[in-house]
Amino acid sequence: MQIDGLQYANWSETVFRQMREGGVDAVHVTIAYHEMFRETVSNIETWNRHFEAYPDLITRAGTAEEIRAAKAANRTAIIFGAQTPAPMEDDIGLVEILHTLGLRFMQLSYNNQSLLATGCYEAEDPGLTRMGREVVAEMNRVGLVVDMSHSAERSTLEAIEHSTRAIAITHANPAGWHPALRNKSDTVLRALAETGGMLGFSLYPHHLRGGSDCTLEDFCRMIADTAELMGAEHIGIGSDLCQDQPDSVVEWMRVGRWTKRIDYGEGSAAAPGFPRQPEFFRDNRDFPGLAEGLRGVGFSEADVRGILGENWLRFFATGFGPAP
Amino acid sequence: MQIDGLQYANWSETVFRQMREGGVDAVHVTIAYHEMFRETVSNIETWNRHFEAYPDLITRAGTAEEIRAAKAANRTAIIFGAQTPAPMEDDIGLVEILHTLGLRFMQLSYNNQSLLATGCYEAEDPGLTRMGREVVAEMNRVGLVVDMSHSAERSTLEAIEHSTRAIAITHANPAGWHPALRNKSDTVLRALAETGGMLGFSLYPHHLRGGSDCTLEDFCRMIADTAELMGAEHIGIGSDLCQDQPDSVVEWMRVGRWTKRIDYGEGSAAAPGFPRQPEFFRDNRDFPGLAEGLRGVGFSEADVRGILGENWLRFFATGFGPAP
Repeated sequence: MQIDGLQYANWSETVFRQMREGGVDAVHVTIAYHEMFRETVSNIETWNRHFEAYPDLITRAGTAEEIRAAKAANRTAIIFGAQTPAPMEDDIGLVEILHTLGLRFMQLSYNNQSLLATGCYEAEDPGLTRMGREVVAEMNRVGLVVDMSHSAERSTLEAIEHSTRAIAITHANPAGWHPALRNKSDTVLRALAETGGMLGFSLYPHHLRGGSDCTLEDFCRMIADTAELMGAEHIGIGSDLCQDQPDSVVEWMRVGRWTKRIDYGEGSAAAPGFPRQPEFFRDNRDFPGLAEGLRGVGFSEADVRGILGENWLRFFATGFGPAP
Repeated sequence: MQIDGLQYANWSETVFRQMREGGVDAVHVTIAYHEMFRETVSNIETWNRHFEAYPDLITRAGTAEEIRAAKAANRTAIIFGAQTPAPMEDDIGLVEILHTLGLRFMQLSYNNQSLLATGCYEAEDPGLTRMGREVVAEMNRVGLVVDMSHSAERSTLEAIEHSTRAIAITHANPAGWHPALRNKSDTVLRALAETGGMLGFSLYPHHLRGGSDCTLEDFCRMIADTAELMGAEHIGIGSDLCQDQPDSVVEWMRVGRWTKRIDYGEGSAAAPGFPRQPEFFRDNRDFPGLAEGLRGVGFSEADVRGILGENWLRFFATGFGPAP
């Protein structure tokens, strides 16, 4: 079982075929950044057309059982997630509606302050807001996983503490390895693991030591160090692969509709676009190479299987849907 | 010229006739609390039907000149405002659209954290957000007045500092007189006045010393003390009159869609509804009584005219529309 904890490709038959070639059995796909409710529904409609057009390659999944069934049928299971809370607008009632429509992950904030929590690019981080506490409780009730990948430190720690169910950081790396605003402190990673949460390691160059020139060995040594910190059962992959996207998409991800100016986020005026992927992970077909790399730094076969998919599957089995 | 800096009545011919009886020449009316863009447009449609039905009583105004023309024609000028930034959703481009549709005031936050600033009921106040700074600049550009009536202290001070144009606190009283979360510190009131801003005194019982039993004399003495602090040219009335509203409306104001529970705000489980208005200000017909009260505590005729309307008119003349 191989699972990717986050991708946002320019979806196409090519990408879906590469998922099958790479043996990627399930992917958490971003269906919304700054899209509000109605626009998110339109994005789901687009996915429905993909499911109708490529039934031999992909299928929608909202439970661990559906992921197992997809694998048995040689299809890649597609799990919906949102990178900002924009799809729920200012309406707590939309949490359950979005879950019914298939959403299984929602970030509480994305770089900026949201109605719920603070993003990692704000100067100040006051933690969960009044509405944030209410919404986390509602997400816990219906089984919509809290994702704090783009959130700030205190907000993340408060989400871990306030949530009655394990949360995820679907795509980020340890800040101790590569000190980017988007990467996470040991304090956060330890608290995440202690509460049964999951970290997905990102392969987005801005999150990597050495950027696009990061090596497989350095990446896998970082995973080994993180396994020491968190335990090998709390880590997985969340590649953040943005395959075949035009640079206009990274601008939308960063700027949305919150400013009339350009905000380069992790990029810069000199390098405003998507960065080049590292050599060892250019698309879904490179997934098996990660297994080789993990073996190379000493992981057992059981740990490799856990990190490449089974840890995510176990997390999904308890995280998706109402609590028992 | 008599102007009320904020009302949210259950609008009807009765209320419009009482405005004329009380000699209220212009009113900033709330057209949205938690309504998002499309719902706000529906509320403007409702106002358009009022303007069509009662052309002899009310008229829409977006400039000081239109207010003077309305007074000359014996009509009450209606100025649109929003008590939360929900109508602009997450889209800075809606600032200009809302201004074009007639909006002249927008609060950056309402009790809770917004995308822009913090509300006065949050435990923490990190000040203006990244988006908040961008939106204030855009509001400055088009001439949509920043209103911080329901915002928290630091956010309010940062809005005053960051805004290149004078801002308003349309409806609140000094916290030194009545220490409610919604009332404002001397620090805020001084900074507001020093930058040419305006405070509208509220007649909503939860903002009054003695609540519903507050006397005209106590209210007017508070105004006299505030004139000492801010200068008599920076103060006006913002009655916060919520005439003829059912209690379901105060629940909407407090709870919106951010929680599934009841939040009593300034009320309580024992007194969840709208409080009883003070004897001396039950509706728009009591406006002339305020003039008597102000004379009674020693204000000059010029000051009385300023406080009851001319200060607001002067503020509108420079605050509405693009900067010169």
